[in-house]
Amino acid sequence: MATWKNLDTLASFDKLCSLKNHVDIAAALSGEEGGKRVADYSTPMAAGLNYNYAAKEVDETVLSALAQLADEAQLIDKFEELYNGAVINTGENRMVLHHLARRQLGNPVVVDGVDKREFYVAQQKKAADFANKVHAGEITNEAGEKFTTVVQIGIGGSDLGPRALYIALENWAKANNTFKMEARFISNVDPDDAAAVLASVDLAHSLFIVVSKSGTTLETLTNEAFVKDALTKAGLNPSKHMLAVTSETSPLAKSEDYLTAIFMDDYIGGRYSSVSAVGGAILSLAFGPEVFAQLLDGAAAEDQLATNRDLMKNPDMLDALIGIYERNVQGYPSTAVLPYSQALSRFPAHLQQCDMESNGKTVNRFSEPVSYVTGPVIFGEPGTNGQHSFYQLLHQGSDIIPLQFIGFKKSQLGVDVDIENSTSQQKLCANVAAQIIAFACGKEDENLNKNFKGKRPSSIIIGDELTPASLGALLAHFENKIMFQGFVWNLNSFDQEGVQLGKVLAKRVLAHDTDGALKVFSDLLNI
Amino acid sequence: MATWKNLDTLASFDKLCSLKNHVDIAAALSGEEGGKRVADYSTPMAAGLNYNYAAKEVDETVLSALAQLADEAQLIDKFEELYNGAVINTGENRMVLHHLARRQLGNPVVVDGVDKREFYVAQQKKAADFANKVHAGEITNEAGEKFTTVVQIGIGGSDLGPRALYIALENWAKANNTFKMEARFISNVDPDDAAAVLASVDLAHSLFIVVSKSGTTLETLTNEAFVKDALTKAGLNPSKHMLAVTSETSPLAKSEDYLTAIFMDDYIGGRYSSVSAVGGAILSLAFGPEVFAQLLDGAAAEDQLATNRDLMKNPDMLDALIGIYERNVQGYPSTAVLPYSQALSRFPAHLQQCDMESNGKTVNRFSEPVSYVTGPVIFGEPGTNGQHSFYQLLHQGSDIIPLQFIGFKKSQLGVDVDIENSTSQQKLCANVAAQIIAFACGKEDENLNKNFKGKRPSSIIIGDELTPASLGALLAHFENKIMFQGFVWNLNSFDQEGVQLGKVLAKRVLAHDTDGALKVFSDLLNI
Repeated sequence: MATWKNLDTLASFDKLCSLKNHVDIAAALSGEEGGKRVADYSTPMAAGLNYNYAAKEVDETVLSALAQLADEAQLIDKFEELYNGAVINTGENRMVLHHLARRQLGNPVVVDGVDKREFYVAQQKKAADFANKVHAGEITNEAGEKFTTVVQIGIGGSDLGPRALYIALENWAKANNTFKMEARFISNVDPDDAAAVLASVDLAHSLFIVVSKSGTTLETLTNEAFVKDALTKAGLNPSKHMLAVTSETSPLAKSEDYLTAIFMDDYIGGRYSSVSAVGGAILSLAFGPEVFAQLLDGAAAEDQLATNRDLMKNPDMLDALIGIYERNVQGYPSTAVLPYSQALSRFPAHLQQCDMESNGKTVNRFSEPVSYVTGPVIFGEPGTNGQHSFYQLLHQGSDIIPLQFIGFKKSQLGVDVDIENSTSQQKLCANVAAQIIAFACGKEDENLNKNFKGKRPSSIIIGDELTPASLGALLAHFENKIMFQGFVWNLNSFDQEGVQLGKVLAKRVLAHDTDGALKVFSDLLNI
Repeated sequence: MATWKNLDTLASFDKLCSLKNHVDIAAALSGEEGGKRVADYSTPMAAGLNYNYAAKEVDETVLSALAQLADEAQLIDKFEELYNGAVINTGENRMVLHHLARRQLGNPVVVDGVDKREFYVAQQKKAADFANKVHAGEITNEAGEKFTTVVQIGIGGSDLGPRALYIALENWAKANNTFKMEARFISNVDPDDAAAVLASVDLAHSLFIVVSKSGTTLETLTNEAFVKDALTKAGLNPSKHMLAVTSETSPLAKSEDYLTAIFMDDYIGGRYSSVSAVGGAILSLAFGPEVFAQLLDGAAAEDQLATNRDLMKNPDMLDALIGIYERNVQGYPSTAVLPYSQALSRFPAHLQQCDMESNGKTVNRFSEPVSYVTGPVIFGEPGTNGQHSFYQLLHQGSDIIPLQFIGFKKSQLGVDVDIENSTSQQKLCANVAAQIIAFACGKEDENLNKNFKGKRPSSIIIGDELTPASLGALLAHFENKIMFQGFVWNLNSFDQEGVQLGKVLAKRVLAHDTDGALKVFSDLLNI
């Protein structure tokens, strides 16, 4: 059994703190040695990706201290306990099994006589069979016509991850002839969200997936009612247009309102649920079950790397520990995620949720306050767009903000033009390479307004192309990074008590059970 | 003439610093007094909006110190100089005239014999005439058919602002029968961006607006070539499908490649250019010139409020100064923008650019280093979505992050359902009211994992409905807020030297003129 200790009780953390500002990356990246460093400071990830940390503020000394921290904090022991079914989510008394949705990493995990790996595989098969029947025209609308569009109704983890993954693979699927159906997403309780999505689809040929683990998420049930209302008004039978993704014990599970119900369970949290039926149903419908299977395989291969005790061969743990050094030793308050791929336009929003909801906490696993900072703010937009936007502050602003670049050698659609002797894809890649060096090395200028101090650390994940497998590896990489950071900070990364108070107060507002400031705000908003 | 001084040389800043942690908002918002505070701490904005700062860490003492700071920093004098045509953008030796695109606030500003207000109005009229002719079928494609779609090709300020405004008004225009044409946007040099947009439109009936002030923006010219290539391959004549928004001296200005050219100038920076032809052409085409005119009127009315020397009647300056207190006295590193309106889904990305590119600087107007922190990180997503995502960290994370809520009493489309005795719109508004109180007041719990410390400050802008006028007021509010903060920090908020180094290095990569670390990164990315 691993021992759960606060970060500031570990001897290796003291060592790490003594290494503040130890590496000057501008110097480290200069000259021929700099070139060698870029080649050396790289670790293979799954699906042909590579994690390059040459522009991070680390050297052999810092890396050795990080390796000691990984050992002392027993990170791999904790990961093993997690995937073998320990109750890691202590606050909610739950296991944490999202890895099991992609592969059996350890021993069988059996709950109430059910092997959980078998359960997840069975639900994948159920989603695949349903999707295949829809694609084959065996499941149709009332008129016997094929469905052409699928709309996910969900919020938070039931929305951001699946949406980001759909956008990431939409063009790839079209270029690779596996595109089956358009997907849309309704999430916000703002009625303009649902109304606009419904106005953009052909209702008679649309399937709707209602996603709610408990079957009680107010926003989602409200939007479901909104959609049912629209279907009914259009003379359509809602139960012939809807399926549910929910837990077996939820009110939605056995309802006759749905064509089918595909099951999730309490052991995969919302923000980690893209690989469960929450993402599986819609992605199988949109792109075919085989594409979703490739995504799971990519994630599984990355998970396998995350089990490696050798820090230098474990890109997920390495990224996590460099992040700890940046947050807790260097004192940087936020991190930007900058994919040089338009297909990843919503991937930063998904990571923002995954990271900030997991590690935005100040009490440890035993509900005791911690005296060090934890999860940073995560934000980002695709490059090159961001270059013409907020990069000004990243280059010359008050705070140093570590950067996480992502780049691919090839585009997804393969359509390109050659202007001034380079393709668009080459320009895209040239920009990300240039930015890494500009941020790290800077450039002196007598006019301080044009001076770049540099010393702004970044890493880059480089891949050949954004495919289902490399997307799965990317997803698993960041999930595992967040998990390892939660272990280091001694947090429970898998609950989210911080979202409860707002829910309770919103119910009181709707029940008109308020007074004082809350009542006046409610009045101002005409509730 | 106003005197430009660093913030830390002002006596009123010392006073402000002595007021650190002066107000306990949890206490201030409690009981009957709390209700009174919510009603009192509110300032009217233009177009029916109200700026409410009851949940900010201010009281009469702090507000009085802020008013002294406004006076000592001569904020209104500086604004007057700005709109009267002083060279405020010292680094580039330019005037700053975006306010003039909406109204003549001060004296005529004449450059080389041209009255700039007349110039902006003339370009608005040119865009309006062009749009009217397109809508009337007087300007058509080669086959004499009406255009149905307009696509903007631009990046940074030529993309984020116009895109955010289009998304904000798309449903409103549909509900109010002023919707004329679908709009799309191509920005990223990633070829998958242009390819995907082109695949989604009917080329033969699409107009393309090429937006580049200099006519030399590499990403934009590359995407223009990409589009021309596609038009030509489809047997269409590009010059019959394209117009330019550019400066009069740019290579695009008199080219026969375009149906027309509408002009911008050097005195409106990219991130402030939504109200110039950069936003005017596409918004006039999409919604009709009258809608764009309403947006300008809303912005002009807000600008008028920003001229008020009374801090309590100047919501833009008040918001700015509260932000200074939070950043420079309380020490908060970032700010979240949280609109409870799906239509504002990309508004935070626009503000992120506008704010971080303007004030993400550490040298003052005289290119001397400043010794205080300047612009914060800005990020955000629409509520209620964010509640199920990163709000965990906002409620219980290590750092306090000030929040900027935006809410409207009515939805744009007016389609709604009643579930559990409330409409979706009521639920939306109940959530934002609840969040303000949850963040400010918190809630004690013996289990510290369920404990909310509160004391997390927020403001809210409340409106009746998101219309062209209220959107214009909202846009001007934040632009003016950023301007006032730049004045306080003694920055030039209108240049962006921090984006130059990356451009220079990217060109070297494309010319294969690199060595060392940059060469190895370039090789890894297959350039």
